[in-house]
Amino acid sequence: MENDPRLSLRLHFAQGLTFGRGKADLLQAIAEEGSISAAGRRLGMSYRRAWALVEEMNSHFPKPLVDSSRGGAKGGGASVTELGAKVLAEYRALEALLRDSSQLEALRHALSDVNDGK
Amino acid sequence: MENDPRLSLRLHFAQGLTFGRGKADLLQAIAEEGSISAAGRRLGMSYRRAWALVEEMNSHFPKPLVDSSRGGAKGGGASVTELGAKVLAEYRALEALLRDSSQLEALRHALSDVNDGK
Repeated sequence: MENDPRLSLRLHFAQGLTFGRGKADLLQAIAEEGSISAAGRRLGMSYRRAWALVEEMNSHFPKPLVDSSRGGAKGGGASVTELGAKVLAEYRALEALLRDSSQLEALRHALSDVNDGK
Repeated sequence: MENDPRLSLRLHFAQGLTFGRGKADLLQAIAEEGSISAAGRRLGMSYRRAWALVEEMNSHFPKPLVDSSRGGAKGGGASVTELGAKVLAEYRALEALLRDSSQLEALRHALSDVNDGK
């Protein structure tokens, strides 16, 4: 399994939203930390940056992905909404779809023939 | 279909090779143009850059993906090998797997509820 490739999957939607691992990891960290600032810290991201990503996501979906109504400018709690959890789950499922695909296995195999001997 | 997201799929292999749309498009263009320089031109890429990508790919696989033995420093013919065609096909199949997935459809749907009305 150590040959498992790291996947970068970025989705560029027609509405102008780009959704990739950065936003997915942020949603997950917010869900686990219960706070945007703590999530940002965990990911080595400034609060400002984390907040900007949350605002970008929230503004593109019909309902917010993150509810920060309990938080103030510099802290307070935040939670991932039902829609946010769904978006995160679908993205993770796409990653898993890739990771478990026969195509990725074939590419890994094509590469490893020579490198296994190194 | 105009809401179809553009996908960026980049695979980072343990061997140090990164393979994404840039290299896939280059392989495809070489196969169609029969030349690295013509492929680079079509993609708006310098010959130097196209050649560097080809060398990077060739050095990571047990056999070359591109055969440029007929070409000189500044031109000549090049072709995509059987292994190169296989790698390209597997990558395109991964893209298709994503594009046709129920997960991507769900994300698209989650986004479009509000934006359809704009």
